[in-house]
Amino acid sequence: MIIVLKPGLSKKDESAVLREIRKLGYRPHVMRGVERTVVGAIGDERTHPSLETLASWPQVEQVMPVQKRYKLVSREAHQTTSTISVRGNVIGGRKIQVMAGPCSVEDERQLLNTAHAVRKAGATFLRGGAFKPRTSPYEFQGLGLKGLKLLAKARRETGLAVITELLSEQSAGLVAEYADIIQIGARNSQNFQLLIAAAKTGRPVLLKRGLSMRIEEWLLAGEYVLSNNNPNLMFCERGIRTFETYTRNTLDLSTVPIVKQESHCPIIIDPSQGVGRADLVAAMCKGAVAMGADGLLIEVHPNPAEAWSDGAQQLTLAGFATLMEELKPFIAAAGREF
Amino acid sequence: MIIVLKPGLSKKDESAVLREIRKLGYRPHVMRGVERTVVGAIGDERTHPSLETLASWPQVEQVMPVQKRYKLVSREAHQTTSTISVRGNVIGGRKIQVMAGPCSVEDERQLLNTAHAVRKAGATFLRGGAFKPRTSPYEFQGLGLKGLKLLAKARRETGLAVITELLSEQSAGLVAEYADIIQIGARNSQNFQLLIAAAKTGRPVLLKRGLSMRIEEWLLAGEYVLSNNNPNLMFCERGIRTFETYTRNTLDLSTVPIVKQESHCPIIIDPSQGVGRADLVAAMCKGAVAMGADGLLIEVHPNPAEAWSDGAQQLTLAGFATLMEELKPFIAAAGREF
Amino acid sequence: MIIVLKPGLSKKDESAVLREIRKLGYRPHVMRGVERTVVGAIGDERTHPSLETLASWPQVEQVMPVQKRYKLVSREAHQTTSTISVRGNVIGGRKIQVMAGPCSVEDERQLLNTAHAVRKAGATFLRGGAFKPRTSPYEFQGLGLKGLKLLAKARRETGLAVITELLSEQSAGLVAEYADIIQIGARNSQNFQLLIAAAKTGRPVLLKRGLSMRIEEWLLAGEYVLSNNNPNLMFCERGIRTFETYTRNTLDLSTVPIVKQESHCPIIIDPSQGVGRADLVAAMCKGAVAMGADGLLIEVHPNPAEAWSDGAQQLTLAGFATLMEELKPFIAAAGREF
Amino acid sequence: MIIVLKPGLSKKDESAVLREIRKLGYRPHVMRGVERTVVGAIGDERTHPSLETLASWPQVEQVMPVQKRYKLVSREAHQTTSTISVRGNVIGGRKIQVMAGPCSVEDERQLLNTAHAVRKAGATFLRGGAFKPRTSPYEFQGLGLKGLKLLAKARRETGLAVITELLSEQSAGLVAEYADIIQIGARNSQNFQLLIAAAKTGRPVLLKRGLSMRIEEWLLAGEYVLSNNNPNLMFCERGIRTFETYTRNTLDLSTVPIVKQESHCPIIIDPSQGVGRADLVAAMCKGAVAMGADGLLIEVHPNPAEAWSDGAQQLTLAGFATLMEELKPFIAAAGREF
Repeated sequence: MIIVLKPGLSKKDESAVLREIRKLGYRPHVMRGVERTVVGAIGDERTHPSLETLASWPQVEQVMPVQKRYKLVSREAHQTTSTISVRGNVIGGRKIQVMAGPCSVEDERQLLNTAHAVRKAGATFLRGGAFKPRTSPYEFQGLGLKGLKLLAKARRETGLAVITELLSEQSAGLVAEYADIIQIGARNSQNFQLLIAAAKTGRPVLLKRGLSMRIEEWLLAGEYVLSNNNPNLMFCERGIRTFETYTRNTLDLSTVPIVKQESHCPIIIDPSQGVGRADLVAAMCKGAVAMGADGLLIEVHPNPAEAWSDGAQQLTLAGFATLMEELKPFIAAAGREF
Repeated sequence: MIIVLKPGLSKKDESAVLREIRKLGYRPHVMRGVERTVVGAIGDERTHPSLETLASWPQVEQVMPVQKRYKLVSREAHQTTSTISVRGNVIGGRKIQVMAGPCSVEDERQLLNTAHAVRKAGATFLRGGAFKPRTSPYEFQGLGLKGLKLLAKARRETGLAVITELLSEQSAGLVAEYADIIQIGARNSQNFQLLIAAAKTGRPVLLKRGLSMRIEEWLLAGEYVLSNNNPNLMFCERGIRTFETYTRNTLDLSTVPIVKQESHCPIIIDPSQGVGRADLVAAMCKGAVAMGADGLLIEVHPNPAEAWSDGAQQLTLAGFATLMEELKPFIAAAGREF
Repeated sequence: MIIVLKPGLSKKDESAVLREIRKLGYRPHVMRGVERTVVGAIGDERTHPSLETLASWPQVEQVMPVQKRYKLVSREAHQTTSTISVRGNVIGGRKIQVMAGPCSVEDERQLLNTAHAVRKAGATFLRGGAFKPRTSPYEFQGLGLKGLKLLAKARRETGLAVITELLSEQSAGLVAEYADIIQIGARNSQNFQLLIAAAKTGRPVLLKRGLSMRIEEWLLAGEYVLSNNNPNLMFCERGIRTFETYTRNTLDLSTVPIVKQESHCPIIIDPSQGVGRADLVAAMCKGAVAMGADGLLIEVHPNPAEAWSDGAQQLTLAGFATLMEELKPFIAAAGREF
Repeated sequence: MIIVLKPGLSKKDESAVLREIRKLGYRPHVMRGVERTVVGAIGDERTHPSLETLASWPQVEQVMPVQKRYKLVSREAHQTTSTISVRGNVIGGRKIQVMAGPCSVEDERQLLNTAHAVRKAGATFLRGGAFKPRTSPYEFQGLGLKGLKLLAKARRETGLAVITELLSEQSAGLVAEYADIIQIGARNSQNFQLLIAAAKTGRPVLLKRGLSMRIEEWLLAGEYVLSNNNPNLMFCERGIRTFETYTRNTLDLSTVPIVKQESHCPIIIDPSQGVGRADLVAAMCKGAVAMGADGLLIEVHPNPAEAWSDGAQQLTLAGFATLMEELKPFIAAAGREF
């Protein structure tokens, strides 16, 4: 920690700050600059009480952390890149994994049609919401257990692995029974109890970035998974909230190289939520793949206009097949496989 | 719903859109403008599938909702202002309710000292976190049940009512046993399962605004409480996340008149989280009171520099007492009482 | 400057950084912490080349400035509060100055009616745009010189001082001839050439905050005025751009105490632009006054629905008179005068 | 325009709104829905006074524009893609144009070294600031005319075309004498007088997106160039301001497909400003190229740590050469040339 003192402090005021730093378990180191005196507090910020509280003192102008707060997710701690193997599909390896399917599971016909079509086009995972977090209580909330069972049926018929969202601590066991990967959605990205419950199921966890989450906070949320003895964590960028209204969110593709640089965990891109418009999904996928993403999470529906949720952002089956073709040269250019 | 068609559509393409509108249960009404054709879809947007999915059609330029999506929280549905009575303290009435106390409950001495001091200065509620949502798993997570018991003890000793945060569906019953008001924090503001669990306890619920929540989404989250048969809901603005770094968040005081205009529920302001700096809390409180807030949620600690969480934003006991004095003329000017 | 080194650097890599720090004119001071080595660079950051460029070095993790970058606007440099006297009206003194008038000057009748009405209700300044910055080139761009002449006429008839916006360096002389205060709008808040041109006219300058300007950047933009020998600067908060869509902007009232704390210059609040809705203006004014604002900039129009620009946010003449009455108790509570 | 009326209006109140719509030159068309009455106002929103002013009426809940406000920049108006030819280099054609060079022109040696190196690596344009907009008046403001002359010299020696920023209306003629493309920076993106002055020089204009500019506003700012008889406009995305602090800005790559969809003008990406960190530039370039960008604007410096401005985001000469090699497969995959 670096503590910047207010200019013109008396000797006595300065001593009081140094005393408090020592009391909290750090060794103070004073540097006198031209206009400011700065104190370095030597000690481990992760095992001692934070010195940020010193910011409340009238003698203190600013407190600046120096260490990174994340540990187990960091590349510093774990220099080789992690991979996650799910039913034979390796996430974070050479092959780019495509996870496709409807926003919500609606009925057997919709789901099986989609599953067969996306598998044929090259997807290896089936996505589909059985429990849906909806802004309004009057919107469709998902089929629940019935949806999970349909996902399992689609897996049996197509061989696709299944990824679906967990919304409630109480259904962690249930969802883990049916899902190959548990998704934590943007609105629950700092619902730490849910993260712990998901981690404890032992299933791989895909952690979406919250709508206004700084990257550091996202990595720290991932830390809740790894520190609960679940090493199989992947991050998923799905757009952040900004002032722009043309797109539903602003998909922050800089997260691809950043997560790779800061962490050893795989990074997946969700362009459907990211821009919220089907007509932009293909371009976003090309960018993501070129930049090194390990996977894509794409919403696909047999008839988007009649979808029960988020139709505007779902691709048709034909649109998805075309996209998969178009991605090939970019995947090759990135030195990856399909 | 208003559906704006792309310019230059063929008759056939236009008919397909109209057919779909009818199929989804609405009556289309066509208006031909100078450059665009617009279709009004007559029907209740809350009981029919949303037409927003039409945005995925290549014929459609834009879909714009016309109705408000919230219902039970709206002033339209409930024209008289709601009040909530908690241990004899009426929230939303003439008296401004001040809820004060430490960010986290740390130990008996800290809590009781604070409780006695804030009561003496005029607070009617004691706030204090027993379960703490922390960005990092390595930070203090709260005393849990022990914290709840200390809050109950402080209530017995001072007569202050207790407000504390609920973090997990599984502890809803436990928290409701000890708390007079259940707080839902910003990070859980769209954790709908938690909102439902809180509503079902029957306790009044204080719903904080999420870090990047639009006001419409906040009101809709409140709808989850009211539609689960709990009429005792209050909103609490605690700052939104913006690009500014001088303050921890940007406290959006416009929510005071907006919530009053759109809803019948009380509105509380949390200046401590809102700006994250003790030196700005007094000014924010004056503004909130002048603008018509029904209450204030203020962090107070006997020794902020040694607080176990968020010390930078907590007032000292003396600072709180001074603030309460300074607020008096503004409360009077607003035609309210203390 | 504080330079945080990457962990695990070789002696040689570390020396290279220290050598560069010395070369750039600073004295390095090394502190070895538990996980990171930190270098304090002693020297004046305002007279030496910035060390932020060191962030491009692979050896460096982070560079953190310690000094404040603003100087002449800072309270540190100028501890007494500055006041600005304009035609006998003192801005920054006990009296709260109200600057009212139409968004755009449209014609003589509109302007004179408004001027007489706002003066009668207690305003001391007439605002009105003669040159208008418009998002689209097809919108009304202002009456130009004719508008300036009408403002001057209204001043002669009512005694109100005049504030109007400067849009172009080339008209700085012209605007200064007619205006008592030169306004720099949000879109030009970092148009530094315009700031310099405005400063050089010698007229007092009101500097609006840009839509996405951090407070530090705003103070630094003000530094362009003071460092060009014009001491008469006031800041004006007019709302920042956020994700919220209910209001046009998010009016950040925390700027009132912050500008007072960091600077000696007066702070004015513009609630009309700030929220963009006439129905919220009164509440925002009450908050601003309670928090210590030195003045208010309010849009008023005889018939807002027929205004040539921004009708949605302009008060009627009657609405303005009512507001002025309603503000009285809050002005008194704040220990100010009208 | 669509005008949504408040629920429960009297016949008289409704008539007043309809009368005003007619008075402003539109034909009202009433649609009665389940909970709201909606009025379509038929007429051209670009030639009549805006009806948005109606939002100030107590009878009106909301006013929603239907037409797009931009015209000359729109693909609707101009369906073939525009190209701009500069000294034989075609922007917007098959070849991706790379514009590279230092943030600021510092001296002859720095500029010529850079120019030769970037030309050799494949760049076709030399970028370099002669006039620099700096947040603080105490930072280096550019070499001015001397810088322009150095750019011209580098052009003579290398054959590279020159792009440089225009900061002041008064130097429009001067900059146009030396520059092949005039750059309008983010801070001046809504300095409409400067846009007009740039347009009138007849030089091609590169218009950067403002830090908090919605895409619609950006396109409308471009409209100022085209409507001033200069058809040679290109847009340049350079990152928007968000809450994220890991990167300097959030580079919004969705603008590539969006600008292509909405407009006929070329789109250039500036990854250097966009993320503000040299270590992320290569990945961002790959994404931009894969998504269809027409060009890249990249900061390159012989010794970034000693750069006079923005060193943290400038590539070394070797780093730039490596990047150009790495881009080749992605350019081929996108069906473009180098």
